[in-house]
Amino acid sequence: MEGEPEKWILMVTARTPTNIAVIKYWGKRDETLILPINDSISVTLDPNHLCTTTTVSVSPSFDRDRMWLNGKEISLQGGRFQSCLREIRARAQDVEDKKKGIKIKKEDWQKLHLHIASYNNFPTAAGLASSAAGLACLVFSLAKLMNLKEDNSQLSAIARQGSGSACRSLYGGFVKWIMGKEDDGSDSLAVQLADEKHWDELVIIIAVVSARQKETSSTSGMRDTVETSALIQHRAMEVVPKRIVQMEKAIQNRDFPSFARLACTDSNQFHAVCLDTYPPIFYMNDTSHRIISCVEKWNRAEGTPQVAYTFDAGPNAVMIARDRKTASLLLQRLLYNFPPQSDTNLDSYIIGDKSILEDAGIKDMKDVEALTPPPEVKDTILPTQKSKGDVSYFICTRPGGGPVVLSDETQALLDPLIGLPK
Amino acid sequence: MEGEPEKWILMVTARTPTNIAVIKYWGKRDETLILPINDSISVTLDPNHLCTTTTVSVSPSFDRDRMWLNGKEISLQGGRFQSCLREIRARAQDVEDKKKGIKIKKEDWQKLHLHIASYNNFPTAAGLASSAAGLACLVFSLAKLMNLKEDNSQLSAIARQGSGSACRSLYGGFVKWIMGKEDDGSDSLAVQLADEKHWDELVIIIAVVSARQKETSSTSGMRDTVETSALIQHRAMEVVPKRIVQMEKAIQNRDFPSFARLACTDSNQFHAVCLDTYPPIFYMNDTSHRIISCVEKWNRAEGTPQVAYTFDAGPNAVMIARDRKTASLLLQRLLYNFPPQSDTNLDSYIIGDKSILEDAGIKDMKDVEALTPPPEVKDTILPTQKSKGDVSYFICTRPGGGPVVLSDETQALLDPLIGLPK
Repeated sequence: MEGEPEKWILMVTARTPTNIAVIKYWGKRDETLILPINDSISVTLDPNHLCTTTTVSVSPSFDRDRMWLNGKEISLQGGRFQSCLREIRARAQDVEDKKKGIKIKKEDWQKLHLHIASYNNFPTAAGLASSAAGLACLVFSLAKLMNLKEDNSQLSAIARQGSGSACRSLYGGFVKWIMGKEDDGSDSLAVQLADEKHWDELVIIIAVVSARQKETSSTSGMRDTVETSALIQHRAMEVVPKRIVQMEKAIQNRDFPSFARLACTDSNQFHAVCLDTYPPIFYMNDTSHRIISCVEKWNRAEGTPQVAYTFDAGPNAVMIARDRKTASLLLQRLLYNFPPQSDTNLDSYIIGDKSILEDAGIKDMKDVEALTPPPEVKDTILPTQKSKGDVSYFICTRPGGGPVVLSDETQALLDPLIGLPK
Repeated sequence: MEGEPEKWILMVTARTPTNIAVIKYWGKRDETLILPINDSISVTLDPNHLCTTTTVSVSPSFDRDRMWLNGKEISLQGGRFQSCLREIRARAQDVEDKKKGIKIKKEDWQKLHLHIASYNNFPTAAGLASSAAGLACLVFSLAKLMNLKEDNSQLSAIARQGSGSACRSLYGGFVKWIMGKEDDGSDSLAVQLADEKHWDELVIIIAVVSARQKETSSTSGMRDTVETSALIQHRAMEVVPKRIVQMEKAIQNRDFPSFARLACTDSNQFHAVCLDTYPPIFYMNDTSHRIISCVEKWNRAEGTPQVAYTFDAGPNAVMIARDRKTASLLLQRLLYNFPPQSDTNLDSYIIGDKSILEDAGIKDMKDVEALTPPPEVKDTILPTQKSKGDVSYFICTRPGGGPVVLSDETQALLDPLIGLPK
């Protein structure tokens, strides 16, 4: 170590997207290494609307590893953080910053401590895969700081040990997590099937649904499913392998009907095995069910799928529309069925890419109130039957790119002089 | 035919119970004959609280077959009614009523017309297996009228062709519907596993849950499941056969923990395959989920099951308590979580066997309001969080007996002189 001793701080800031599985991961064959019982496929979401930003820093003046999430210090003692930190430190290389006159030899990384600050540009508790983006960003930014030679696929195998689905956030576009065969997990990693430009007409609308009950964590939920469901092994061994092949093909061919059918049925089957767990796990609620009915009714009326839906371990709906035109028609339907509460601002009810709202011809609450029932709905829903407040807000987004380093230092979350949150 | 021509009317009145499956029937291998893809097991419910009463009558003065359900004339043209009528007429025997001076030869039944009146002592639309009790009662009463030699098991194979689960209503207590192997359905029939006295401590509480959405009919629902679910065949061929053996043993041994575990997991798996159907079918709603959570939390706290739950093709919960003491504790919990709306009379909110309510020490609404959270609930539920009106009412009942002929003519639903509803 050179440079002015005890004084220098080296830092890297990176941004990593969240992802939503369209063929679901549910069930581990190894709890410690986080090895899944089946392959899964995901779509990466545009980091402009949903992402984690992480600044990692190292300094001889730091006396211990510390981490802040959304400005609040959190413990790094969890086994999952420790696995990631250990795996990355073991692969660290020599680092030299000539401008700052800093030189770190690879063996020094075992002794140097880290300060880490992480920030989600979306509510952490909303059930939007914040841990996937978070762990992926931690691993990616540390790999850049420590000059790892590993590519993103190899890094994904490290991120996997922090949070299974995090491995799929190392790439943009369409990503497959290969379950692997090795006992040590070395071949359980993510590969990119296609980048986000391959199928760029898709538009994604997320309904953040108000939950009344506390949810089962996905870690304990999937453990219970593997231990008690009489259907999960059949799903993992017989059903998913066929769907993976079909989904890869659907993505390659931009075949929306097949993509939608596979995404919807696989989401439903994931929730089916949750229900087959003992005691049963319910992630979807009545609002989730009503969103599905709304989409299914429309798809059936059109004769071919316009919109796919998928739900993770919570009541939020992620809807994927075949194109912008369809997305604006979907948004009209959603606002007709799930209008905001009277005291809610439309601007905070539809967030993300607001241009979809413009396309739908909706400028203010008057336009929402003037929406007429879509043609596939026979009976007009009376205003009193509409349950305002069942959806907290909608996020409009699209498939997006993978992790990037943010070289603009003003975007760092840590003060470059003291290494503490700004 | 003798007796005063064109004048005489011969009639029989019978009462038949409903039943609730504890190992579920879902999926047909033959739509016309109604042959199932797996065995099922049910508990017959006490006809004092839930039953169908049917009067069947024959007269040379009737010019066509007619039927009234709950006082309203309905069509008998449906294939299912026609199947039952055809099968029964084909087995009709000579009948003689010496007192009335009536003699009917078996070949006459093909020409004689019937008047049928049926009445449910519970709401038809509440999703409480009214068609099972109804078809069973139709077949049973016609068999008595036409002097059939067939026993109840053979009659069950006829009732089955009217409504699958109707075949299980031909016996009291605990009943198995054997799926059978023959293409003609002759061996697909019900047998009694044990009568209602075998396990008479059990108490049943039914929560009739308010539904917001129209439900998928079970006929089309199970067809869609068989056609689209990737899990239903595994359930029918691998899971259910083992559970049938275990459930028979649990009933034989009055082994409540095994009985409860099997009933709950099989109900959940039935709803899981509904969710795995495309488009997905949701029968349970948020209220159903909350009832399950309430029971599961209590069972876990006690270390051994106190109550089993099972849900048919709708949101209603059927809860089976191990004994009267447990049932009164269950009722306290249910009333704590699901109090009646302020304008509801307690007497109409808890119907059936009201002695359970007395055991629970609840005399009026003040007692309901004074209920304290059960020990397994850590956080007191605020009165504002309780959703009054989510449950329409509760029915307290128990396992009960099979079909009986009501010889008291005052209980007949048809006027003995004109053969029309009283």
